[in-house]
Amino acid sequence: MSPTKESISEAFKNLQLEICEALEAEDGLAKFGSDHWERPGGGGGLSRAITDGRAIEKGGVNYSAVHGDIPEQLRKHFKLDQGQFYATGVSIVIHPQNPFAPTIHMNVRYFEMDNGICWFGGGIDLTPSYVDTQEAKYFHSQMKNVCDAFGPDSYAEYKKWADDYFYIKHRNETRGIGGIFFDHLEPGTKTKKELFDFVLSVGKSFAPTYTRILSNKKDLEFTEVQRNWQLIRRGRYVEFNLVHDRGTKFGLETEGRIESILMSMPSEARWVYNHTPEDGSEEAESLKYFQKNIDWI
Amino acid sequence: MSPTKESISEAFKNLQLEICEALEAEDGLAKFGSDHWERPGGGGGLSRAITDGRAIEKGGVNYSAVHGDIPEQLRKHFKLDQGQFYATGVSIVIHPQNPFAPTIHMNVRYFEMDNGICWFGGGIDLTPSYVDTQEAKYFHSQMKNVCDAFGPDSYAEYKKWADDYFYIKHRNETRGIGGIFFDHLEPGTKTKKELFDFVLSVGKSFAPTYTRILSNKKDLEFTEVQRNWQLIRRGRYVEFNLVHDRGTKFGLETEGRIESILMSMPSEARWVYNHTPEDGSEEAESLKYFQKNIDWI
Repeated sequence: MSPTKESISEAFKNLQLEICEALEAEDGLAKFGSDHWERPGGGGGLSRAITDGRAIEKGGVNYSAVHGDIPEQLRKHFKLDQGQFYATGVSIVIHPQNPFAPTIHMNVRYFEMDNGICWFGGGIDLTPSYVDTQEAKYFHSQMKNVCDAFGPDSYAEYKKWADDYFYIKHRNETRGIGGIFFDHLEPGTKTKKELFDFVLSVGKSFAPTYTRILSNKKDLEFTEVQRNWQLIRRGRYVEFNLVHDRGTKFGLETEGRIESILMSMPSEARWVYNHTPEDGSEEAESLKYFQKNIDWI
Repeated sequence: MSPTKESISEAFKNLQLEICEALEAEDGLAKFGSDHWERPGGGGGLSRAITDGRAIEKGGVNYSAVHGDIPEQLRKHFKLDQGQFYATGVSIVIHPQNPFAPTIHMNVRYFEMDNGICWFGGGIDLTPSYVDTQEAKYFHSQMKNVCDAFGPDSYAEYKKWADDYFYIKHRNETRGIGGIFFDHLEPGTKTKKELFDFVLSVGKSFAPTYTRILSNKKDLEFTEVQRNWQLIRRGRYVEFNLVHDRGTKFGLETEGRIESILMSMPSEARWVYNHTPEDGSEEAESLKYFQKNIDWI
């Protein structure tokens, strides 16, 4: 049976809860808050923020299901005079305390219009300050496993898409070590149910993958120099999200709930004029990996 | 005699030097570095950064004089097939250490094309974390003095322009307490010399105005709570510069020297989910002033 918008948003809501529970269990100290909000034009969401944990410094796991008149930009694109849309999704950004633990982002989303057009999108990407090649390999293998069940070329395609999307053009750096990214997956060759199953499997891969990574790193000792590097890399995260990220831009332009949109911001970020790590340092080594087209598997 | 592009850029270069000397004297500890850079398409600049001073936490005073083919966007706007441009200016952002001392921004600039069209632009605006109404009044009076020598309505016009420009739409807040902003001042009613004299007087007002403000505030005692508020306000500064500031956007899109463009970033910034100061607190009182159309004089 083809999934309805109600069943998709219900599954996303459950996914949010599962992920929050898994992250709380891994953190062992902090708990997620809950802020219900309503969208003036229709629908709303549940924003869940966490802060000052043992492992997690700041993070958000947001669910929303909104509907209303199709925004002008989309109407123009599809040459529609009017119409209604429905959009639902889960968005996550987790910034950990430990400089050796990576920041992670995940998004799964569904969009439909009352003319019958609908699509899924989403992805997961990892942003370490210090690149651990074993961790990177594990992370990409997890992503490949999820993609392989969907199609033989999916991982290669969505991995490239992530490389291209999570790219800080003005720095000539990728945001981190990438992951997978996909958009506008419309029913056709694949059924709507197959698309939904894939998107949900991406969502369900988040908690086990990230809690394992966090568990390995959360208690490592670190120095002031390493914390400083983490904060500089968080500055780059801020630059990507405010300058390039389409979701953030769309949210700001369409006057979305600002505190939910900017939940992706780190607790702290730092900028140092002309900061250049010393040749051969751990920091310089990590920088080499913030480039496109690295085969991690 | 009408000022030439050479005499304008020479005056701007001298202005940069004067301002750096005045700021170093006021700081008493840190010195400006000097980075000469060249623009691949023509011209270059001198970026001067300061950091970890007694009064100044991080700042930059940039001079540039660049030339080359007119960028596509402008050619389209002016319906030109081709042509050469020349642009010169000084741009400053200073983030002080003390949470009671305001961040300040100044820019003066001149642009000409080989078809004879030319204009000046610029402005100064003040961004306190804690609004001191006496300081705000002093700052705006200084700006009014400079403007009054240029025209009776100039202050009112440029003050409104600053309110509208330095506005963080997605927060429904102004960046700080405003100041003056003007652009596209072309010779006509005023001669080119009159325009240049005005722009230079804006530039020359910077050092005495800001060193007085800094001198009053740099040694005040403050608490962790006040430092925290300063860092949250710096987060808003980052949001404005990366999301809204036209100069920053233009620089990023046209692949300008990234470290010079992002010299405006603070040393540190902080984001706290849904941070709302307590009613009646100093922080809540300051927030009330981050709105347009406040008459400070």
